[in-house]
Amino acid sequence: MRDDLSLLKQGALHLRSSSAGQRTRMLELLADSIEANTELLLSENERDCQEHAHSLAPALAQRLHLSREKVEALVAGIREISRQPDPLGAVMSRTQLDQGLTLEKVSIPLGVIAVIFESRPDVFFQVLGLSLRSGNGVVLKGGYEATHSNRAMYRIAREAFAHNELPAEWFTLIEGRESVSELLKCDDLIDLVIPRGSNEFVRFIQENSRIPVLGHAAGVCHLYIDRSASHGQAVEIVLDAKTQYPAACNAVETVLIHEEIALEFVPKLATALQSAAVYLRGCARCEEILGTVDRVGDDQWGTEYGALVIALKVVPSLDAAIAHVNTFGSHHTDGILATDELACARFTDLVDSASVFVNCSTRFADGYRFGLGAEVGIGTGKLHARGPVGIEGLLTYKYILRGSGQVVSTYSGCNPRVFRFKRLER
Amino acid sequence: MRDDLSLLKQGALHLRSSSAGQRTRMLELLADSIEANTELLLSENERDCQEHAHSLAPALAQRLHLSREKVEALVAGIREISRQPDPLGAVMSRTQLDQGLTLEKVSIPLGVIAVIFESRPDVFFQVLGLSLRSGNGVVLKGGYEATHSNRAMYRIAREAFAHNELPAEWFTLIEGRESVSELLKCDDLIDLVIPRGSNEFVRFIQENSRIPVLGHAAGVCHLYIDRSASHGQAVEIVLDAKTQYPAACNAVETVLIHEEIALEFVPKLATALQSAAVYLRGCARCEEILGTVDRVGDDQWGTEYGALVIALKVVPSLDAAIAHVNTFGSHHTDGILATDELACARFTDLVDSASVFVNCSTRFADGYRFGLGAEVGIGTGKLHARGPVGIEGLLTYKYILRGSGQVVSTYSGCNPRVFRFKRLER
Repeated sequence: MRDDLSLLKQGALHLRSSSAGQRTRMLELLADSIEANTELLLSENERDCQEHAHSLAPALAQRLHLSREKVEALVAGIREISRQPDPLGAVMSRTQLDQGLTLEKVSIPLGVIAVIFESRPDVFFQVLGLSLRSGNGVVLKGGYEATHSNRAMYRIAREAFAHNELPAEWFTLIEGRESVSELLKCDDLIDLVIPRGSNEFVRFIQENSRIPVLGHAAGVCHLYIDRSASHGQAVEIVLDAKTQYPAACNAVETVLIHEEIALEFVPKLATALQSAAVYLRGCARCEEILGTVDRVGDDQWGTEYGALVIALKVVPSLDAAIAHVNTFGSHHTDGILATDELACARFTDLVDSASVFVNCSTRFADGYRFGLGAEVGIGTGKLHARGPVGIEGLLTYKYILRGSGQVVSTYSGCNPRVFRFKRLER
Repeated sequence: MRDDLSLLKQGALHLRSSSAGQRTRMLELLADSIEANTELLLSENERDCQEHAHSLAPALAQRLHLSREKVEALVAGIREISRQPDPLGAVMSRTQLDQGLTLEKVSIPLGVIAVIFESRPDVFFQVLGLSLRSGNGVVLKGGYEATHSNRAMYRIAREAFAHNELPAEWFTLIEGRESVSELLKCDDLIDLVIPRGSNEFVRFIQENSRIPVLGHAAGVCHLYIDRSASHGQAVEIVLDAKTQYPAACNAVETVLIHEEIALEFVPKLATALQSAAVYLRGCARCEEILGTVDRVGDDQWGTEYGALVIALKVVPSLDAAIAHVNTFGSHHTDGILATDELACARFTDLVDSASVFVNCSTRFADGYRFGLGAEVGIGTGKLHARGPVGIEGLLTYKYILRGSGQVVSTYSGCNPRVFRFKRLER
């Protein structure tokens, strides 16, 4: 594994030093190769689907299946990425420190990333395309149930670049849990790992590697219904945030309701949720209001249900709502529904989450809906990229200082030369 | 410790929600308080200096000592920070996703940082000032030898804010190694730790905490002398990079020399370095050229001497130099001295370091010299801030999405509404 990854790191250096035009050409070659090999890909995917037909839940089986339409959409996606402006070498700032001494801050690839994803074959080419556009080497590890599909996609990608001038050593496919364990030890060869999948899996990776992790272990999202909220709108938004895709990380788990409107609003909301087959849990005050409700224990407010289950809590104030979110949330996405602008401002100001929403569904927290194009993941940490992360999350920068013989001693000691620090146009 | 840090985290939330004007006023109060308490500060520092007069090396004793001029410079520094534009709430991008649904990416403080520094009392107020300007809570841990100074500075800072409307719970001083160990366990309460000091210490922190670390464990910096280099300029730059401040992390440790010029250049460089009392080490080829030299073992090329010692190595090509830097360097600062522009471009492109320099001394890698104002540290990682890090490194962002009742189901399923994704002016 180490030897393979060392080679890959070298390959990534070649990729990084290729031209934007070369990378664009490679994206086109990749799209062509997928198109030319559609039948192979579909038949290999069919093998996966048949082998796991009886062992997978319907939702998972659906994710595993590649239709002709999905493959067409994949090809279109890669062509779309090929048309995106090249993100490398962008000058983020330029400062003249002195005559003939100019500092530039320039965007560069992270280096080598590892993406570990579920049995969703469409992720393979999306990630490969984003890595290529951003000049990053990439290790792909797909789900076990998609083994035939993954191998076919890897072959299709190798073939795409077979006659290209650049070596194809910048990407690889790995299989098996042991490979993942070995990979996680190589913190000198992998710059970022992006685990997609279950919370337990993400947490396992965070706790078992010194490689920086981009991702989220949990999505405990909240909506707070302020006393100034429009009740009808609030009911509609909660329903969307809970039921539109309950398994999504940006689905709402807990609804906080201001005490002043609780008596009127909680029954309305409860009725609407129950009509949508949502199982209700609640605090003591909700129990009083509704007569009976499955009580949420004090230690259960941080639960991510990921299903048609929701927790309701009555809070005495806006600040109590903010404190609840900051204590029990996962810093993913939390929203306020209110017409009081001061309350909205206080909420967006003090809630310590990557995405803070006002008067809309938490389900908008998504790279595509944010207009970022493709999404590599959603981060809940504070360093590097957070929230829905697009291609920017695969970039870092370096400083390049170009001089003409300058030494520091000129600028220190007695009678030192003075720096100019002149901001230049980018 | 946990309880104190929880309180501090709350205090930091208050600081973050204060206005830019309030934070500016607090910086002015801080400067006033330092000015008013100069005598106290000098006398407490004198106690430290006397207690450790015999145990500290001259360079360390000098760092510990606060002169009246240093205190005046500190006050001027805080006033300078108070005049800097407030970095919070800056809108980094604004996108209209749809009519009445607008996404903003806004700069915010990281939250709570911990800065662990050597016995250099001037760092205390610099860090406090930068934390205040950036709205971050901060835990300060100064060196043991500066105990009286640290305590005096802490009292001066508390006093500065004693009559201010904001609680002063956003900063604290801790003492002792046990406190550091306890702090490192609180990864839910501290967002970033910035260790300054010895390499071993930084490495200890990186390996013993799940809190993200900004810093560098080593500064193994290189200069590569290309066959196209101006010899006179190259000698002058190597001398500056090695001798101007040999203990600095951005001082050069290894000089790589292109084989084609080695026979002429190595003796010139060796003579100049020896005249400056620099102890020479070298490769086998250097030994041939110079007659005798202390040979560098194959496993010693990653050594940070931090003293008047330098390693010279003859390399067969530019690419060999790049490979050496990427293998043995610490990704801190590495430079090429050359007149060949293609060689310079290849070097800046392929050397995988935070700062890559052309025709100037590595000693320019510094927040002040880069025009960043004060520096919180120098990072050699790839995520978040890297290279010399100014106030930007204490910031992150959040997404704020403001809607008017939008739900995701409108934008999906049959006949979905289409997003607009219109970039708005910031």
